[in-house]
Amino acid sequence: MGTVVALSGQVGGAKLADGLRRLRGADLAVVVNTGDDHEVFGLAFSPDIDTMLYTLGGIASPAAGWEPAGETYVLHDMLHRLGSEHRVRVGDRSYALPLLRTEALRQEDPLSQVTLRFCRTLGIDARVLPMSNDPVRTVVVTDNGHVSYHEYLTELECEPVVKSFLYAGADVARIPDEVLEALYAPDLEAIVICPANPYHTIQPILAVQGMRERLRECGAPVIAVSPIVGDRALKGAAGKMMRELGHEVSARRAALEYYQLIDGFVIDSVDEASAEGIRACGIDVAVAPTIMRSEDDRVALAQVVLDLARTVRARKEAERGG
Amino acid sequence: MGTVVALSGQVGGAKLADGLRRLRGADLAVVVNTGDDHEVFGLAFSPDIDTMLYTLGGIASPAAGWEPAGETYVLHDMLHRLGSEHRVRVGDRSYALPLLRTEALRQEDPLSQVTLRFCRTLGIDARVLPMSNDPVRTVVVTDNGHVSYHEYLTELECEPVVKSFLYAGADVARIPDEVLEALYAPDLEAIVICPANPYHTIQPILAVQGMRERLRECGAPVIAVSPIVGDRALKGAAGKMMRELGHEVSARRAALEYYQLIDGFVIDSVDEASAEGIRACGIDVAVAPTIMRSEDDRVALAQVVLDLARTVRARKEAERGG
Repeated sequence: MGTVVALSGQVGGAKLADGLRRLRGADLAVVVNTGDDHEVFGLAFSPDIDTMLYTLGGIASPAAGWEPAGETYVLHDMLHRLGSEHRVRVGDRSYALPLLRTEALRQEDPLSQVTLRFCRTLGIDARVLPMSNDPVRTVVVTDNGHVSYHEYLTELECEPVVKSFLYAGADVARIPDEVLEALYAPDLEAIVICPANPYHTIQPILAVQGMRERLRECGAPVIAVSPIVGDRALKGAAGKMMRELGHEVSARRAALEYYQLIDGFVIDSVDEASAEGIRACGIDVAVAPTIMRSEDDRVALAQVVLDLARTVRARKEAERGG
Repeated sequence: MGTVVALSGQVGGAKLADGLRRLRGADLAVVVNTGDDHEVFGLAFSPDIDTMLYTLGGIASPAAGWEPAGETYVLHDMLHRLGSEHRVRVGDRSYALPLLRTEALRQEDPLSQVTLRFCRTLGIDARVLPMSNDPVRTVVVTDNGHVSYHEYLTELECEPVVKSFLYAGADVARIPDEVLEALYAPDLEAIVICPANPYHTIQPILAVQGMRERLRECGAPVIAVSPIVGDRALKGAAGKMMRELGHEVSARRAALEYYQLIDGFVIDSVDEASAEGIRACGIDVAVAPTIMRSEDDRVALAQVVLDLARTVRARKEAERGG
């Protein structure tokens, strides 16, 4: 058993990362999207990092995985009573990580170190790491102009038609040392792309300067899990975006989003018919239940992913030997 | 009936300001101490302004007047779970004004305008105003070095012996236009120094460049209410500080803190014996219950203050005429 690097974000991505953590513990590093990061009230909000910390720390709400369990909204209500026009309903507990992050960043601690400190405080043995300590902002190019992804999600409620995405700052953002260390671990067993929106969760990570090259260079099998199940996104706007970008909404299309990067792709049992077409693109396929309702589901899917990585590695070694 | 300007801060000061507001409404301007302002998590905390807004807005806790009624501490508990070392227990609702203030100040709105906006939102007809839009920080000179008042209160729990006070920045801080306007109102009836710690609540206001001169210039009677009742501070550390500064703890000493500024002084009924000594300093005295338990008490004390102002004005006019 070796080490694992997961690229992740959102609730589904955090669930699979949690499955991998349950299998690998301290041998897992999770590289999280920060393209959705934004400032409100001058506070440093990192939604995907916080979702990951709540999930791996075992304190996420089962129903609303992006916030801590038992969340309340006393502060939000007070803000509105006092004239706030911010629409996003941020819970009381959900202000804690942004407040502490803001304070630490003002003391010039890098985001990666701040995030590792949160892991220790929450008793998370795996390493949660930002894709970069430099700012990268996902911009949605819509038929009505450019908006930040945060604004697109909250103010515009994902309404405008998507034409393309930009990852502002990605071309000069550096990969944190802690991420490079994980990628160059001598016993790296697999790189896992968790099920999450390809456009605003996974692609921003891949857009960080040199990331794609590093992922290929390190030689471990790259395995992705489909965020599309039965011709629709399990959650969020991935299906809508895929359609507006002119693509069919399918597991096969999701696989093609990572074309020339992934060696293996896990699709849901309901999409078994797509397996053939994906294999025709030179990608190994595993078919399994991908909807993670229980903690057991997370572990089971993580095991499918690691098994597929082993299969890919064996095939490649056989090809090289033959 | 004319207009009134109150200098104020802390819970007791806010209660008397509320009494004045109930008598004068929009004809009251309250100039509030900002020497205790501080940043935590990068947020702009203004404790005296917030206490004033909660009190005048009718949403202050009856038991803990520095915070909103029904306060909860969910965020505080979460911060500590996540490793925060801040000791002050800030409630969930109590983050709202600092968050909104921080946001507005980042947009370069002056603090006075931000505070007036909060008044409108809370339905407060009186004008709550900071003593300055420029930063002034009260520094406590202790036998163990210099500390900010905020640190003295929270981290050091008012333990170290006080040697003196500094009001850093006061010598270059400007009086806001809205305060000057209130002070130069043609129908100004009285200037009221509310019952509050002289050293870290009232003196910082008086230390703002030109403030003492303006208060004398505008010609209205200046009336203070004693923060000392029966040889001790009603609340807080005023008594301890008075003693450590080498003074007796008495209503008479409290009056002397405003020597050559005030025309009249209101002392509590239990301190009636001090009246003679204060009058000997050339200060008019009214004796009345000064402990404000009910809203009626606030109004009654405010009326005593305004009556004393009228007495002082009549005496001065008689002296001038005679």
